[in-house]
Amino acid sequence: MGQDGSPAHKRPSGSGGGLPTSTVSNGGGRGGRGGLLPRGRQMQKTFNNIKITILCGFVTILVLRGTIGVGNLGSSSADAVNQNIIEETNRILAEIRSDSDPTDLDEPQATEMSLNETYALGPKITNWDSQRKVWLNQNPEFPSTVNGKARILLLTGSPPKPCDNPIGDHYLLKSVKNKIDYCRLHGIEIVYNMAHLDKELAGYWAKLPMIRRLMLSHPEVEWIWWMDSDALFTDILFQIPLARYEKHNLVIHGYPDLLFDQKSWIALNTGSFLLRNCQWSLDLLDAWAPMGPKGPIRDEAGKVLTAYLKGRPAFEADDQSALIYLLLSQKDTWMDKVFVENQYYLHGFWEGLVDRYEEMVEKYHPGLGDERWPFVTHFVGCKPCGSYADYAVERCLKSMERAFNFADNQVLKLYGFSHRGLLSPKIKRIRNETVTPLENVDKFDIRRTQVEAKPQN
Amino acid sequence: MGQDGSPAHKRPSGSGGGLPTSTVSNGGGRGGRGGLLPRGRQMQKTFNNIKITILCGFVTILVLRGTIGVGNLGSSSADAVNQNIIEETNRILAEIRSDSDPTDLDEPQATEMSLNETYALGPKITNWDSQRKVWLNQNPEFPSTVNGKARILLLTGSPPKPCDNPIGDHYLLKSVKNKIDYCRLHGIEIVYNMAHLDKELAGYWAKLPMIRRLMLSHPEVEWIWWMDSDALFTDILFQIPLARYEKHNLVIHGYPDLLFDQKSWIALNTGSFLLRNCQWSLDLLDAWAPMGPKGPIRDEAGKVLTAYLKGRPAFEADDQSALIYLLLSQKDTWMDKVFVENQYYLHGFWEGLVDRYEEMVEKYHPGLGDERWPFVTHFVGCKPCGSYADYAVERCLKSMERAFNFADNQVLKLYGFSHRGLLSPKIKRIRNETVTPLENVDKFDIRRTQVEAKPQN
Repeated sequence: MGQDGSPAHKRPSGSGGGLPTSTVSNGGGRGGRGGLLPRGRQMQKTFNNIKITILCGFVTILVLRGTIGVGNLGSSSADAVNQNIIEETNRILAEIRSDSDPTDLDEPQATEMSLNETYALGPKITNWDSQRKVWLNQNPEFPSTVNGKARILLLTGSPPKPCDNPIGDHYLLKSVKNKIDYCRLHGIEIVYNMAHLDKELAGYWAKLPMIRRLMLSHPEVEWIWWMDSDALFTDILFQIPLARYEKHNLVIHGYPDLLFDQKSWIALNTGSFLLRNCQWSLDLLDAWAPMGPKGPIRDEAGKVLTAYLKGRPAFEADDQSALIYLLLSQKDTWMDKVFVENQYYLHGFWEGLVDRYEEMVEKYHPGLGDERWPFVTHFVGCKPCGSYADYAVERCLKSMERAFNFADNQVLKLYGFSHRGLLSPKIKRIRNETVTPLENVDKFDIRRTQVEAKPQN
Repeated sequence: MGQDGSPAHKRPSGSGGGLPTSTVSNGGGRGGRGGLLPRGRQMQKTFNNIKITILCGFVTILVLRGTIGVGNLGSSSADAVNQNIIEETNRILAEIRSDSDPTDLDEPQATEMSLNETYALGPKITNWDSQRKVWLNQNPEFPSTVNGKARILLLTGSPPKPCDNPIGDHYLLKSVKNKIDYCRLHGIEIVYNMAHLDKELAGYWAKLPMIRRLMLSHPEVEWIWWMDSDALFTDILFQIPLARYEKHNLVIHGYPDLLFDQKSWIALNTGSFLLRNCQWSLDLLDAWAPMGPKGPIRDEAGKVLTAYLKGRPAFEADDQSALIYLLLSQKDTWMDKVFVENQYYLHGFWEGLVDRYEEMVEKYHPGLGDERWPFVTHFVGCKPCGSYADYAVERCLKSMERAFNFADNQVLKLYGFSHRGLLSPKIKRIRNETVTPLENVDKFDIRRTQVEAKPQN
């Protein structure tokens, strides 16, 4: 969804408006056959044919647009047409309200940088830890801990303009509602970013300059937690076990064997990770960013990454591959401060999870955070805000709806409600209203029963 | 936007698909004329005609839908068609992912209640103040104040399903981002509601059962602040002057003379108001709700309200008119605890504000909250999430974009950025990056310069 870490497939310029095209020629053909008829009739006929041709022309355009670029969606052609009529109309609407701004940062454009000079997020800062420490001492009203816990700022976001596929905006809305709920219950602040701070780093690279900016603007924050807009909290009870990370600066979900033995491009996932507000992190961002600038640099870097990483398809450099490459190629510099987490789903790949929610409800309980009750369900490759994706749109939307409602049920429990089904936006009462409601607060307010992850070994 | 307090106009069942309809009949007519031709030709011809008829049938439906219900949009017919193709396709998409739920709460339906029995939000609670006081004493870890300020919970929301007009979901997203920003900076928690707790009270009445639920589920909260999804914070610095309301339980924007002298139906606005978590508020909600139930009750109540209130158009009962009616008809019961606020824009009507933002930036500064720098800009009658509105869609969208960016500029200032223009989703740098970023934090972090409203007299 614009800012997630999964590959962006190029959009195939497919054809296929067979029906309407042939229909138009039918119309034309019949016009020819009209030669058998008397003159007056023929003129009226020709007039009618023109009317039909224009009409069918309209359909042709509509259906033709409806067919382009859905070749890899794998969805039914009916879907495909609906999908693309929407894209079309949304584009028009976007134009209606588009600004008079000359340069369009969303258009891919040749970068102004030469390939020789290295890209920088900003002027090199070398003494951040001491600067921050002094500030914290001078500003006790902005402590870096809340109720004894390190202060966390969750950063998420989506592109500045409406989604290519308008249903995407509805799921961006559900995604942020899901994050508001989790963060309210766990005392985490949210920054929702809709701006491209650095035009060189649009798309999934946009998180880097924003993370740096937030570190420098919020010295009271100890951890910046990046989360993709297509990742949902599905265990509302689970809490990040911060104590486990006292000696680390980057916490990211992944598998060491996939990383070091296989050099797999999915060994780590940048859809959800925590970065400590410190000098080390600024240095990491500086080392991470240079592959990001749009245009030749990102394209060339993509080739390097595809050659170096196992299983990576050929496409421009993405932030996830670049991080894996950096940690592998400069292991000694970075790895001792990186915590590769896989005891719970800081990131959980949606396939294999979304279909098991009912089973989880039956067998387990929230607060586990792992495969028994995933902390985060991440819709990698769904791109509901984009106009193309690695998976069928309908399957993605249904799965996201299930994940959202699965999580929402855990929030609604306090209020005595539950969704009628994991696919239903509608809710039903699970408790009768009472004249002593506080008994239920004591029972169901999950802030009183927050669970920290425990090492499984 | 589904939950706001402005009138919902009935959708005119207009006609107008003249072109396609006549085309279809043409198609039929030509089939008849085919009688002049030999048998084989005639069959082929009939076959072609059927093809065309089906095709044109499709266009007819499309264009027909495109023409229905845009009579009062006042937008160009091109807009109108785009608008409605979107509604059409979005409806289809909603169906694709709609649940198998038998009853559809979104459909207007005859209420199951008789007109005699009075509707109740829940069992009558009479000792809430003492219940809550006991709980607060027993749960010191959930204090009703934060840093010496009364704890506020902001409640907003939108309908469970995607907007009829998909661009609406994009503005719901921008609206919640705007609220996240304000509430983060002022230590206010947010609940975003997407569910209909009570099927009787859908639409703009949905806020009542949710407010009651939150009071009973969050005893630690002192004030519930309802805010419509089409209302934006446009003064990020301004703070609610809670001290002013110590002796009051309902704080709502309005004008006493309009209320008492004129009985105007816009004397108060329920788009943004604060309700104290106390017995008085539960009683008010109980007295407020009975006009809400969908169907005959709401329709009949609408007639009473239109007859009683000055300037009210004829439509079903809405929560705003019902509150005004209640406060007027039972003045002695309620008014001494109601603070009618108009020294700042707790609600500010968008017209007359959105075009003056540049002038405000030139002459004034944030923190004033009144006509010089409105605290809230409320897009009454725009309904960007609905399929109809009182104002031209384009004008509404442009104005909301301006309001969002006007507010966003106040947030981005800390980070050193600003929108390129009030209509531009794109941002530009307003300060150079520095190696001593904390100097800017001290200068621009608005949490250090929060302003409380001062009485103007």
